[in-house]
Amino acid sequence: MRTTIIGLGLIGGSMAKDLRKSKIATELIGIDINEIHAKQAVEIGLVDRIESLENGIKNTDIVILAIPVDKELEILSTVLDQISENTTVIDLGSTKRVIIESVKNHPKRRNFIPAHPMSGTENSGPTAAQEDLFKGKIAILCDQEDSGPQHLALVEKMFQSLGMDIAYMTADEQDHSTAFVSHLPHAAAYALANAVQTKEDRNIIFDLASGGFRSTVRLAKSSSTMWHPIFQQNRDYVVESLNVYIKHLKHFRDCLKNEEDDKLKDLILNANKIRGILEGENPHFVKNEEKLVKLYTK
Amino acid sequence: MRTTIIGLGLIGGSMAKDLRKSKIATELIGIDINEIHAKQAVEIGLVDRIESLENGIKNTDIVILAIPVDKELEILSTVLDQISENTTVIDLGSTKRVIIESVKNHPKRRNFIPAHPMSGTENSGPTAAQEDLFKGKIAILCDQEDSGPQHLALVEKMFQSLGMDIAYMTADEQDHSTAFVSHLPHAAAYALANAVQTKEDRNIIFDLASGGFRSTVRLAKSSSTMWHPIFQQNRDYVVESLNVYIKHLKHFRDCLKNEEDDKLKDLILNANKIRGILEGENPHFVKNEEKLVKLYTK
Repeated sequence: MRTTIIGLGLIGGSMAKDLRKSKIATELIGIDINEIHAKQAVEIGLVDRIESLENGIKNTDIVILAIPVDKELEILSTVLDQISENTTVIDLGSTKRVIIESVKNHPKRRNFIPAHPMSGTENSGPTAAQEDLFKGKIAILCDQEDSGPQHLALVEKMFQSLGMDIAYMTADEQDHSTAFVSHLPHAAAYALANAVQTKEDRNIIFDLASGGFRSTVRLAKSSSTMWHPIFQQNRDYVVESLNVYIKHLKHFRDCLKNEEDDKLKDLILNANKIRGILEGENPHFVKNEEKLVKLYTK
Repeated sequence: MRTTIIGLGLIGGSMAKDLRKSKIATELIGIDINEIHAKQAVEIGLVDRIESLENGIKNTDIVILAIPVDKELEILSTVLDQISENTTVIDLGSTKRVIIESVKNHPKRRNFIPAHPMSGTENSGPTAAQEDLFKGKIAILCDQEDSGPQHLALVEKMFQSLGMDIAYMTADEQDHSTAFVSHLPHAAAYALANAVQTKEDRNIIFDLASGGFRSTVRLAKSSSTMWHPIFQQNRDYVVESLNVYIKHLKHFRDCLKNEEDDKLKDLILNANKIRGILEGENPHFVKNEEKLVKLYTK
């Protein structure tokens, strides 16, 4: 099918690679306001050609928005205005409530599937695109009853072709859960990078940076263009998750400071349980839509 | 040379592999109070044979302590009592002030080299041992003027054979720097794991756990046997680093909460600088002892 991708960075570019490989996309049209990225995307074969926004979304089967969530807000309504009756539109942003609210009364709301594939790296741009980025990961689809069943089926088929499992949630559930497992770790890494950089002799610190430090601080490399608007759009839940995290850090510090060493040991042992959970019986998703809806919808 | 390793876990076992490969160790004697680990270490060929503490440190060229820092405190003085005049003893613990203080008046203090190779993984036990774990990493040697030059030279040669660069620091500098680049990231990961586990529906959280979350929380798998005593022995500096981190997290949260979005963006952009520093002109070490001493000693 004819596939149009708006935003040819890490996410849009990686999706282009896999959609072409799986033959889901037979024709790939790219749109990007960054002319250098647009040129690179054609040169490395991510898309077949570049079009303007206006031309690229006409007469296409699916439009995929893979741009920062503030930019999505700016153009989503226009995109829905201009597509043909049968075109499916999905967005891949990390926040969902604000995006959905912005088009809730749009006459083509049912053409739109709000999605969030839980995958990425700390790199950006078309040259950061990689095959199999989404394989084995979860794609969240939100408020699916507000989308047309044909559009939903097409998007499900597309994510499955990328090797993804699908989770169905309300936009509110997705924003709350994602605050804890994705937005909080980013905020924690940004703050850690800033905390360590205040230390007097940066050369000593960074010569000593071991694998553990590099791993913990990796997300602090993530681009502000993408992450600043995510924090803004999910402000309340990210603040909530930061409050929980700060409470736990203070408790850890106080146990250490007050020599409550038994309590400190318990905190470490409880944290260790993350190993069993991360390496255990995941995913809990059952690959059956009805059961999933039951699991993840109140 | 005849090499005795006390503690056949991740660190001791990995060192055994590389010392044998580089032919620095021609005979490898293992000591471990955990009988299962001792048996495994012989079975997988990490060491040639197992000895009791008393027998294993007699008539050997070098004794390497690769055990949790509280266990080091318990036996280091006894080890120095029982070795022959020419044996070199090194410890590989992450904290240095308390260890050194415990043997400062020992008659064989000059046989002892307090060391800290900055490498590891979140796994433990002899089966976690891996080749080249130390390659390209930094080995810190502390208070080198209090060790005999022959012992120092032997240890330098040993770490260089593992592919490590050597940094010379006072015990105080090492404990302070290590608090920020190693102990703080561990504390941050433990607290993050605990914070996320308090969230109501753990299944949702962990199904959604993406690469970013896994990376940030990876260190929370690290064993309490090793880490609890590190926090205890470096209590003051870890509390200091936690205070700096909590201050930065609160500032991030407050900027977000109060919609000071320009400030929030600046925090992200400043954190992004970690990429340049981590991927830049490191290491700052010059491979010349004299210059290193200048760089890292006041």
